[in-house]
This record gives sequence, C-alpha cells and structure tokens, in this order.
Amino acid sequence: MKIYDVEGFPNPARVRIALAEKGAQDAVEFVAIDVMQGEHRSEAFRQKNPDAVVPCLELEDGTCISQCNAITEYIDASFEGPSLTGTTAKERAVISMMNLRAENGLLNAVGTYFHHATPGLGPDLETDQCAVWGNRQKATAEQTMAYLDSVLASSDYLAGESFSVADITAFAGLAFADFAKIEVPETLTHLTEWRARVAARPSVSG
Amino acid sequence: MKIYDVEGFPNPARVRIALAEKGAQDAVEFVAIDVMQGEHRSEAFRQKNPDAVVPCLELEDGTCISQCNAITEYIDASFEGPSLTGTTAKERAVISMMNLRAENGLLNAVGTYFHHATPGLGPDLETDQCAVWGNRQKATAEQTMAYLDSVLASSDYLAGESFSVADITAFAGLAFADFAKIEVPETLTHLTEWRARVAARPSVSG
Ligand SMILES: N[C@@H](CCC(=O)N[C@@H](CS)C(=O)NCC(=O)O)C(=O)O
Ligand SMILES: N[C@@H](CCC(=O)N[C@@H](CS)C(=O)NCC(=O)O)C(=O)O
Repeated sequence: MKIYDVEGFPNPARVRIALAEKGAQDAVEFVAIDVMQGEHRSEAFRQKNPDAVVPCLELEDGTCISQCNAITEYIDASFEGPSLTGTTAKERAVISMMNLRAENGLLNAVGTYFHHATPGLGPDLETDQCAVWGNRQKATAEQTMAYLDSVLASSDYLAGESFSVADITAFAGLAFADFAKIEVPETLTHLTEWRARVAARPSVSG
Repeated sequence: MKIYDVEGFPNPARVRIALAEKGAQDAVEFVAIDVMQGEHRSEAFRQKNPDAVVPCLELEDGTCISQCNAITEYIDASFEGPSLTGTTAKERAVISMMNLRAENGLLNAVGTYFHHATPGLGPDLETDQCAVWGNRQKATAEQTMAYLDSVLASSDYLAGESFSVADITAFAGLAFADFAKIEVPETLTHLTEWRARVAARPSVSG
C-alpha cells in the first residue's frame, strides 16, 4: 500500500505514528505530495482524495482512503500488535469519543487558527482566511488542553490505561500548537507529564 | 442503557435511525434533555458529556459516550442485524471516510451555518455567533451535496452497495439543510433519488 503525504505535518504524523506502533512502516511506500506548491489541490490528486488534503492511503486494488480516523482504523485492523482503537465495543466507543474530542477540540481547532488567523501556509495557499473565526478556535484549543489535563489527572492515557489513537491525535495536536505558537499553560502538569511519556515512545522518538 | 437527547434534532436522529435499523429501540431508555432551555449546558449534564451537546449514551456501568460516530459504532457492535459500519477492514475504512465526509462537509457545515448565520436556537443560546464563517459553511454544504450526488451516480449508497452510517449522517444532514432553508439543487438527481429511497426505510419512515 501507498501513503501520499508530507513528512512533518500534523495529520500525516498521526498515520506515521500509528504505523510505527504496529511496526508496519516497511509495509508502506510513502509518496511525497508537495503541499507547499499546492499539489494536494491538483485535479490528479483530487481524483484520489476529493478532500484535497494529506494523508491519503491507497490500497493495492486502487481504493483510496482519506481522513486519519479511517486510515488509522484500517492500519490498526491490518497489522499485528497492541490495539490502538480498542477491542470490546465499550473500549472502542470510549477511544473513538476521546479521539474525536482531541481532534475537534485540539488538532482541528489549532489547524483552523493556523490557517485562518496566522500567515499559515502562505498567501498562495491561504486564499480564504477568516481571522475572527480562527482566533476563536485558539480559545477552543486552550479549553481543550485544560479538559485533556483533567482527564489525565486520573488515567495514564486519554482513553484509559492503554495508549490509543486518542493519544496520537492529541499528541499531534500539541505539536501543531507549538508550531502555531499556542502555548501549553505550565499549570497543566498532567498533560505535560503525559506528553513527555508519549514523546519517549519509540514510535515517536525513533 | 440510556440515551439523553431531544427528539427531532439532527444528531439525535442519527442515533435513533441506527437503533431502528438494528431493531433495538426497546433496549434503550430515552431521557429528554431540554436543549431549548439550555439544559445540555448545565453542570449536571456536563458531568456526563463535557461536549455539552446531545445525544449522549449512558451504559449500565455509568460510562457516558458522546459523539454520534462513537455511539453508532457502539450500537452497531452491540446488536444483531446487518452491519452499519462494515465488516472487513476495507469496508470499515470506506464507510468511516464517507461518514466523515458527510459529517464534516454536510451535517456540521449546515450546523455551523444554522448556529452562526441564522437566528439558530435563538438569542439565549446563540451568544457567540460568527456570521461570516457561518455563511461560508453554507457554500461548503452545497459543494458537499454535489460531491455526494457524484458518488451516488455510480453506487446505490454512499459507501458502496450497502446502507451504512454514512447514509444516515448524510440523510440527517439533508434534513438539517431543509430546516436551515438550504436547498438541494434540482439538478442533483442521484442525491434526490437516494434520499427518497432512504426516507422509505422503516427505520426512517416508521
Ligand atoms: N481531517 C483530515 C485533515 C487533513 C489535513 O488537514 N491535512 C493537512 C496537512 S496536516 C493538509 O493537507 N492541509 C492542506 C491545506 O490546508 O491546504 C484528516 O483527518 O486527514
Ligand atoms: N459532533 C456531535 C454533534 C452534536 C450536536 O451538535 N448536537 C446538537 C443537537 S443536533 C446540540 O446538542 N446542540 C446544542 C447547542 O448547539 O447548544 C455529535 O456527533 O454528537
């Protein structure tokens, strides 16, 4: 299978970490998309992914899967190793819920701030900014950081005692926050401690 | 199990349709939340669902699950009947992707338009509107309608030949569009034909 992405960007990072957790990086051919030159918006790429974003997974039969949540679920089901999306219906539901909270409240909120209220990817790509909305999303991201900290006050990971896609999404969200210069308040000690633990995982540090 | 919701609202409808598809309505006790009076934002309700929205599923052990995607996945896994989220890894990934496209591009876009660029739920609840952003989401919803129509030109349902949560989400999105007075263009004949077929399902019409 192939993954179309660009290294170092937050959503591609979610998929790369999930692959590394499964020890499956070598099962994938990475194809670089030149996002800074707008290649993800070309007609050719939209044929694969009408969402016009990276990452995008292409299976052997040509089926293309976009959206990190769909891609990471596929990876989790396709390779051996500890589950990232849960085993029982209840585990899966809790992980899915926490992953969506981290995605909507943190990663996507930071993304909207970055693309709409900062220079983002530069004037050639950010042709449709809305600063007033972008700035509100910064506040949402900060509120979500505080919420995630409160969850981590009583559990090791965001969806309980095991590492999951919810942790991957939140970790990518904090990396994006750094890049967009949204600070993690020092008072959020549980979040900071969790972040250091996740950063030390071979899938992230390696 | 209990579901906290309000009948007739678009996100609660997604969960009610999924339950009806599984023939499982009687397994659930519905608890009405007075959204128009802001009960979903009360401290008591936030204890169950910090997202402060409906629906919210409460399991026998007290675990609360918010976010329709997590709730419908739980329902699908917990009751007999045809799968709404797919069986193989590939089916699940395609359904998840199409569901997210319908959710982000249609249902949530209509919701943002409704809450930000129309009177929405009224001045007591819509205290933080952003009309410029809301109006853009109307355009996103219209583009997504055209995209969904193009998908339905070559398959019976949004994620292939079987009805799935992606269809439920898109159907709820169109119902919300009606309510918010966003028209479905008459030229989108595949979408209109699909909508009539979904509307005739006992889970929706019954
Ligand atoms: N919800 C999507 C988000 C993907 C996304 O926004 N990717 C970014 C890179 S991190 C992108 O392609 N941005 C291009 C652009 O903004 O034009 C997912 O889960 O994959
Ligand atoms: N992403 C959420 C959306 C839930 C949602 O927005 N629910 C609406 C009712 S359809 C709500 O509770 N709105 C209350 C408000 O806007 O204050 C989900 O999947 O459950």
